[in-house]
Amino acid sequence: MSQYWTDLVHKLDPYIPGEQPQDQQYVKLNTNENPYPPSPEAIQALDSYNKHQLKLYPDPESSRLREALAQRFDVQKENVFVGNGSDEVLAHSFQAFFKQTQPLLFPDLSYSFYPVYCGLYEIESKKIPLNDDFIINTKDFDIDNGGIIIPNPNAPTSMLIPLSDIDKLCKQSSSVVIIDEAYIDFGGESAIPLTKKYDNLLVIQTFSKSRSLAGLRLGYAIGHKDLIEGLNRVKDSFNSYPIDSLAQTAAVSSIEDDDYFQQTCQKIIQTREQSCEQLSQLGFKVLPSAANFIFVSHESRGALELYTELKQAGVLVRYFNKPRIDNYLRITIGTEQEMQKLIITLSEILQPGKIS
Amino acid sequence: MSQYWTDLVHKLDPYIPGEQPQDQQYVKLNTNENPYPPSPEAIQALDSYNKHQLKLYPDPESSRLREALAQRFDVQKENVFVGNGSDEVLAHSFQAFFKQTQPLLFPDLSYSFYPVYCGLYEIESKKIPLNDDFIINTKDFDIDNGGIIIPNPNAPTSMLIPLSDIDKLCKQSSSVVIIDEAYIDFGGESAIPLTKKYDNLLVIQTFSKSRSLAGLRLGYAIGHKDLIEGLNRVKDSFNSYPIDSLAQTAAVSSIEDDDYFQQTCQKIIQTREQSCEQLSQLGFKVLPSAANFIFVSHESRGALELYTELKQAGVLVRYFNKPRIDNYLRITIGTEQEMQKLIITLSEILQPGKIS
Repeated sequence: MSQYWTDLVHKLDPYIPGEQPQDQQYVKLNTNENPYPPSPEAIQALDSYNKHQLKLYPDPESSRLREALAQRFDVQKENVFVGNGSDEVLAHSFQAFFKQTQPLLFPDLSYSFYPVYCGLYEIESKKIPLNDDFIINTKDFDIDNGGIIIPNPNAPTSMLIPLSDIDKLCKQSSSVVIIDEAYIDFGGESAIPLTKKYDNLLVIQTFSKSRSLAGLRLGYAIGHKDLIEGLNRVKDSFNSYPIDSLAQTAAVSSIEDDDYFQQTCQKIIQTREQSCEQLSQLGFKVLPSAANFIFVSHESRGALELYTELKQAGVLVRYFNKPRIDNYLRITIGTEQEMQKLIITLSEILQPGKIS
Repeated sequence: MSQYWTDLVHKLDPYIPGEQPQDQQYVKLNTNENPYPPSPEAIQALDSYNKHQLKLYPDPESSRLREALAQRFDVQKENVFVGNGSDEVLAHSFQAFFKQTQPLLFPDLSYSFYPVYCGLYEIESKKIPLNDDFIINTKDFDIDNGGIIIPNPNAPTSMLIPLSDIDKLCKQSSSVVIIDEAYIDFGGESAIPLTKKYDNLLVIQTFSKSRSLAGLRLGYAIGHKDLIEGLNRVKDSFNSYPIDSLAQTAAVSSIEDDDYFQQTCQKIIQTREQSCEQLSQLGFKVLPSAANFIFVSHESRGALELYTELKQAGVLVRYFNKPRIDNYLRITIGTEQEMQKLIITLSEILQPGKIS
């Protein structure tokens, strides 16, 4: 607390990210990072970059990167915005589109940064409840609103909305619809092609999950050029040079290395399916996942207790102390070996007769 | 223009950075970059970083970097905030401290991003005129205000305010005073020690100028821990992980390599003094500079005309089409060779009888 803070700062309720232990001693299945390294071509690009050039400002418009993304998604460069992680892209989007006379709508269970952005930009919001099976019914969003944002697949539930529902959602809405596709590459179908059909649709993706570049901070948005121009107006009023030269370079090479991208996504999907099977056998209810994480609840043991025992045994997963989901764990899909460590540890914790 | 933009976005008047030609064909003296490469130790740190680890999120608190800065400036880690370039640090500071009932004060000639931030956060502001010699009289800021921000040395004038004036300014003010020291390492005395005396003083510096790391985007603020906490509340409501892992790593090594830092700063100061002398001989009025740039006006030739002719000859400098300074050029201090190219080119442009 300080007399020097603005009123806003006193009222803020900041986001709390998942634990990032710096000692690396855990099997880390808590922040949905990719267990595989970035594309070898991206690493090569970083290694061969002439670092003397870091004395110069980066390209403020990230032109090469936006061109690479445009090519990949069959859109124009003017349809692409990049930011310092998809969190920055989301923040700018909230400021650019969502402060309206009607409230912003998002699912009651979704990315917990959304209400934080609403606090930062003083945006009214209304949470739309998922149904009892954690399914998002897009018809529930057909009420007066100043914008809609939905993660697809949803976090932390991991569940996918069919593209046909997104199509209907854009059609029925007269405000901006943002689909936050941080996890789309693990089994979902992207809404990016729909951005050509709907000028109110913005799709946001990230390099942090499917491209194993969480450490470099890169996210992007794709949509109608007028939406992108709105984002650029905010960006250029905030920070002209948000993406550093190394990140731009690595990201271009990552996008160009499609084989590696497809391979690692497939490996994670396979490991996920195997883990779901094994966890079911251990008495877990596992929600159907199209993400690089799963959302599970045990038939007889509490989630907080399991989280704590797993942490003591060196396995870090994510627990949310929130209504409706406080008996669930969110578990990132790691390598096969990491998931085996999880399964073995859980088997030990859950074995009959063990005193918890 | 778009029906989907918020009212704010329609009203924004974004910052326009200096030209960043991507073809590198110019002698580039327009954006105050350092002509020397980053510290060899910083480059070594980038090269030896295990890039497989980029799959993981960076330390959200940039702890090692904040500790290195704290050690360098003889403060505690709790007194240090880092951001994605000092522009991001400035943006967060405006939101954290400057939206008050009284207007923010800044010099009428100063960093042209300040009024842009005021637009972004809807902050009232009042410009305090420099005197006719472009001197900032800190007594002029002794009026009701909701905050004060001054670059020292000032940009684009290059002129320094004595530390004793900053001391008086903090003492006389009951609001937050930010001293924006982007250029302090080229001959000024930092106000950082005063942050122990005044809990309303925040000092902002950058790695983009004296540390040759404009391409990596790093800035920081030093002040009372309550001010830093205010900044962290904004940061954690905007982007939990603003500084990527490579930038954190390189920045720590740069800070630790003090010898290289001192050497490059000294070289730039020497080249500046030499260039000032030569430009005076060519008929330029050169304001006394404590920065890595100079602000000059020619006795007989217009600044816009000189900017244009220099650009045609392959030398890029900065021209501001603004009242009071539209007959000045801001020239970054490059290497000795680059400055010789500037001097020779100007000599040719200015030679008697040449048709302009």
